[in-house]
Parts: sequence; C-alpha cells; structure tokens
Amino acid sequence: MWLQKRIILKPKPRGFHLVTEELLERLPEIGQLRVGLAHFFLQHTSASLSINENADPSVRRDLELHLRRLIPDGAAHFAHRLEGPDDMPAHLKASLLGAAVTLPIADGRLSLGTWQGIYLGEHREHGGPRTVLVTLHGDAR
Amino acid sequence: MWLQKRIILKPKPRGFHLVTEELLERLPEIGQLRVGLAHFFLQHTSASLSINENADPSVRRDLELHLRRLIPDGAAHFAHRLEGPDDMPAHLKASLLGAAVTLPIADGRLSLGTWQGIYLGEHREHGGPRTVLVTLHGDAR
Amino acid sequence: MWLQKRIILKPKPRGFHLVTEELLERLPEIGQLRVGLAHFFLQHTSASLSINENADPSVRRDLELHLRRLIPDGAAHFAHRLEGPDDMPAHLKASLLGAAVTLPIADGRLSLGTWQGIYLGEHREHGGPRTVLVTLHGDAR
Repeated sequence: MWLQKRIILKPKPRGFHLVTEELLERLPEIGQLRVGLAHFFLQHTSASLSINENADPSVRRDLELHLRRLIPDGAAHFAHRLEGPDDMPAHLKASLLGAAVTLPIADGRLSLGTWQGIYLGEHREHGGPRTVLVTLHGDAR
Repeated sequence: MWLQKRIILKPKPRGFHLVTEELLERLPEIGQLRVGLAHFFLQHTSASLSINENADPSVRRDLELHLRRLIPDGAAHFAHRLEGPDDMPAHLKASLLGAAVTLPIADGRLSLGTWQGIYLGEHREHGGPRTVLVTLHGDAR
Repeated sequence: MWLQKRIILKPKPRGFHLVTEELLERLPEIGQLRVGLAHFFLQHTSASLSINENADPSVRRDLELHLRRLIPDGAAHFAHRLEGPDDMPAHLKASLLGAAVTLPIADGRLSLGTWQGIYLGEHREHGGPRTVLVTLHGDAR
C-alpha cells in the first residue's frame, strides 16, 4: 500500500515545536499497516524536521538557544541578507538538521521510542504555515 | 518483502563507534534481497546514527572532540540540566546528526562505499544498551 | 517497481553545488511512477547531500563560509591529518549534513517545494567524481 498526503502545519513562532500529534491526527491510515515506513518531507528551505525529546520543553528552548550561538543572526560574513538577518541562519539550520524524517511503522502505529517526538524547527521569525508531504508505504494488516 | 527486526546494541562509552558488523551479523535476511532499502532507526534522543569512515579510528576520535567544542558540556545557557552536563549536548547532537540512516541494498548486500561504515554516536557518559529498529524492504532474489 | 542506478557526478570545486538537474537528467524512470520515493545515496565520507535553496547562489557561498568557521581546516586538535587540512573537516561535515536524501515522487515528478533543490556538498579541495546510488520504488502510473 502506498499513500501520499499533504499536511499544512499551522504557523508557529521561531523555535522548535513538538508536532507529533498535529501530524498523526491527520494520518489515521497508519493504523492499516502491519509493517511499513512513513516519510515526512518538509517542502521548505528555512525550517527543519528532526527527532528529539517529547517531554521537557527546556530541550526545545536550549536547542534554539544553542543554535543561535553557533549560527548568529545577521553574521557579518553572510552575503545572503535580502530577506532579513534570520534568513541565512535558517538555510544553514535547514541543511544541518534536515528537511525529512523517515519513521518505522509497526502494528498500525509509528514505532517511536518512549521519549521520541517529531520536532518542527521553525527557523524564521514569521515562517507562516509549513507544508509536509507525507508518504506512507507498507504491508496492510 | 518487508521485514522488521529490533537489534540491541551493547553499551558503549561516550564517543563514536563503528557498528556496521554488530548490525549486519543480526541481519542475514539482507542476503535475500536483489534490490531494496534498509532503514535503521535508533529509538533514543541522546545518541545518533550516521555514515562515516570505516578505517582510521582517529576520525571517530576527532568527531567526538570537535563536537565537544561546538557543544560544550554544561554550557551556562542550558536550562535542561537535571540529568547531568552531558545530557543537553547529547540532545543537540541527536538532532544535528540524526536518529536514522537509510541504506541501499543491491544483490543481497548493503551497498556502502568502500570507506563507509555505520557510526553509533553515543552522546551520554553512561548511555547503556541502545535499540535500533531495522526495517528491510525490497524485491527478493 | 524497484529500480537502482549508479550516477557519477562530475568533479566539482570545494563548496556547495546545486545538482538537481545533473541527477534528474539521468532518471527519466521517475516519470513512470504515480507515487513513490527516490533515495539518493552518496558513497563517500567527505562529501554530503542535503536539500536547500535553488535560487540565490549566495546561499551556497554562505553555507560553505559559515561551515569553514565552525569547523576550521587543520584545527590544532585534529589527529586525522594525513590526507591534508581539509580532510577531517570534510568527515565532520559528512556526518552533520548526511550522505543521503529521500524525496517523494508524485505523478511522475520529484515533489520538491518551489525553492528546493538537491545540494552536493563537496568538502574536499580535490574530491574528484562522486558516485550517487539512486534507488527508486513506487507504484507505476
């Protein structure tokens, strides 16, 4: 079985956001798969998808804080500045963190570890809605 | 053909470890596939999987050393500190390096480049055993 | 349908390069798929694949420039130096950026966002030709 679905994530402030539930509530079809893979692909170059801790919000805060130190807004050596000081850092984070995650499906559920969740990294101040193209494939139950 | 298998990697000290053989000895089923993909998914948020050089151990050592400089243990701006000074750096490395690798299968073998191997990044001082959920799919030989 | 193809990318200077067209002109088979996934796997440990902006070349320049600051050539703490000052930084970038991208296929085309393209990160001064093993699978149209 193959299924593809476009999901629009609501606009979010700059930073890291746990979006596991916002994605899964639109994907009841995962329940039909005995074994398979779910590919989540963000169609943007200034945001990211990654897997990290689903509990303490300070992890999301510290991720954002530390990445701002490694890649400062409006660094003097950036030539790409037309869209604002947060734009080139957003592209850097997009390549370092990645635009996609692939997750295993087992017995009708995403097989995440106990502490894992899906993070949207919103790297622009005003990124707006973000589109995720989800591709599910696997063996039906 | 779809196949899913849980593999427990033995506890390892903090740093980068070549785990290609430890994984492959548990996956004789790869030999049945003419063409396919192998998805390795680490069910943790303080360790990582990535692909890098399988020869000189100094690459693993330098990777660890340089990442400790970019993301120092117990940095003053981290709020997430309850589990120790290595915990928040471990989460940062997990998102930057990634929790999963997908590798091509050709003629019954993982199709890695000559110098490539699978690295487990163990980012905690005492991470314990680590679980990898492997999903194989492809056309049988 | 499963299809696997080896593509040799022409030698490129150090830096980031948009290779979407160089890859796609070798992959007319994508046109046969209604829905599917394309897995691009670079068989090297001193180059990378990632997704980023396909328009302004200053994004590629700034990516290279900023990563050179985060991971300086010939840093004093590197032990892995035999192959030159750009070698260990290349391994670090390979793990951070990644050796593979998986992209969705819809209606016979790669389903990239409007501004997205595939970047080859060439992290060596003289990397030479680079091999990408592409695995396509999906439902035929």
